[in-house]
Amino acid sequence: MNTIRSTKAIAAWSRSLHREGVTIGFVPTMGALHDGHRSLIRAARLACDAVAVSIFVNPTQFAPTEDLSKYPRQLRHDQALCRREGVDVVFAPTVKAMYPEGAHTTVTVPALARRWEGEARPHHFQGVATVVTKLLSLVQPDIAWFGQKDYQQAMVVRQLVADLNLPGRIVVHPTVREADGLALSSRNVYLTQQERQAAPVLYRALQAGASAIRTGERRGAAIQRLMIRTVAREPLARVDYLAVCHPTTLEPLATIERHAVLLGVIRIGTVRLLDNLLVTARHRS
Amino acid sequence: MNTIRSTKAIAAWSRSLHREGVTIGFVPTMGALHDGHRSLIRAARLACDAVAVSIFVNPTQFAPTEDLSKYPRQLRHDQALCRREGVDVVFAPTVKAMYPEGAHTTVTVPALARRWEGEARPHHFQGVATVVTKLLSLVQPDIAWFGQKDYQQAMVVRQLVADLNLPGRIVVHPTVREADGLALSSRNVYLTQQERQAAPVLYRALQAGASAIRTGERRGAAIQRLMIRTVAREPLARVDYLAVCHPTTLEPLATIERHAVLLGVIRIGTVRLLDNLLVTARHRS
Repeated sequence: MNTIRSTKAIAAWSRSLHREGVTIGFVPTMGALHDGHRSLIRAARLACDAVAVSIFVNPTQFAPTEDLSKYPRQLRHDQALCRREGVDVVFAPTVKAMYPEGAHTTVTVPALARRWEGEARPHHFQGVATVVTKLLSLVQPDIAWFGQKDYQQAMVVRQLVADLNLPGRIVVHPTVREADGLALSSRNVYLTQQERQAAPVLYRALQAGASAIRTGERRGAAIQRLMIRTVAREPLARVDYLAVCHPTTLEPLATIERHAVLLGVIRIGTVRLLDNLLVTARHRS
Repeated sequence: MNTIRSTKAIAAWSRSLHREGVTIGFVPTMGALHDGHRSLIRAARLACDAVAVSIFVNPTQFAPTEDLSKYPRQLRHDQALCRREGVDVVFAPTVKAMYPEGAHTTVTVPALARRWEGEARPHHFQGVATVVTKLLSLVQPDIAWFGQKDYQQAMVVRQLVADLNLPGRIVVHPTVREADGLALSSRNVYLTQQERQAAPVLYRALQAGASAIRTGERRGAAIQRLMIRTVAREPLARVDYLAVCHPTTLEPLATIERHAVLLGVIRIGTVRLLDNLLVTARHRS
């Protein structure tokens, strides 16, 4: 397995493979790889001839007040995981390689990025959209995998790939969870032991919402109240937002017609936890 | 020569050629092709194995008050010119193919796009940057040619290609002029006969500036005044801006150290005419 540092070298690697008719699967990450990433890598390994994983803690998607400097970095460990999983190339550029002096072009997906995480983190999705455009343009994958845990991010990426005619198909891969339901995230390491025990309340709240929909509830507001009440029972948790949304536009739904996504973010201590569930309302027979 | 209408088909064409090791030269245009475009096509024909020309009057780079609806469209004539010049593919998508319902991702190059044309036409360069990103991503050229006449546009494109790691090298090709110095432009057809006779004053003004630099003038303000005075002698012409700028940042220069670009836009009747000259101040011996 090769680790590539320069943008020119990764572009050349991709070009040479495409010239041979080799298909490329791509898993973009910020490193601190866990079983969620592993599951994306395995999906890529199964579907494509060659697999590239990028490891880049993208500064432009962090606000100055956020955790950029303390975000977990463990390249050696990540390289070892990639090697075990049969990854062909780890692309781990420096910040300077990705953002040379004078670079200032930005990619924006205004409608999809406005709500939810976009409200909480105003420049976040512009940073994501810009770096994903760069990465896809460099790696030129046939397929790229994104985790469902960051659902809005995955929708922003789908939209920008379609809108800018970027290469590759975007696959959104199911969230991997701990035994108690907590969605895997590199930020879970920030939780104290006590907070960790409280954290699964988010998944329980989303499940309560999904279960209400299964038993016939269609009113967005009622489902939202139920989810909020579930989180309220956990004293360490505060709701950032819990919402019943259209699965592609992410607009709140007054009434569920058929498909919906339950989006949730809570804070436990200083940690923001994200999760979501896709639900389909079935007609009762 | 093929005319391709769909984004999928042009991407497939490009992929199949790259798989064969064929190099692709690309000339993006808004059609109404003239000898300026012909000169870009010939440069592409000489440098690359295959040549694609896009013909697309991009609505997102026009303001509602501008000439989108009356912009000259003459696909048959353009196809014939391309055929004669040995173009392999004309890519002439519909607006709906380029901007399907719901598309809303935009590319912005804020610092370079702020001044000059960006001031006169606030959303212009965002439209240009977005469509060029799409076209380069679809065609995946080895080299793409842009005319020097639209100098700021060429610099915006260079910047976004570098910043977003888009495929291809950008070549800026010298302006082609009429015998009297008027830069070729598809919008020259808007000029009445009398206005057409007045139009070369812009080139004369730029030449006066360049000539002052050759004879030792280094003060930006003095060169600017000279250019403005030259245009003032033509009663049909009004100055939009005439400026002495750094050739890559496009910031105004108080003093010319070595390289500069003289940027000029005048209005004659309702028509805005653009032109520019690159100049190098030589040390006197």
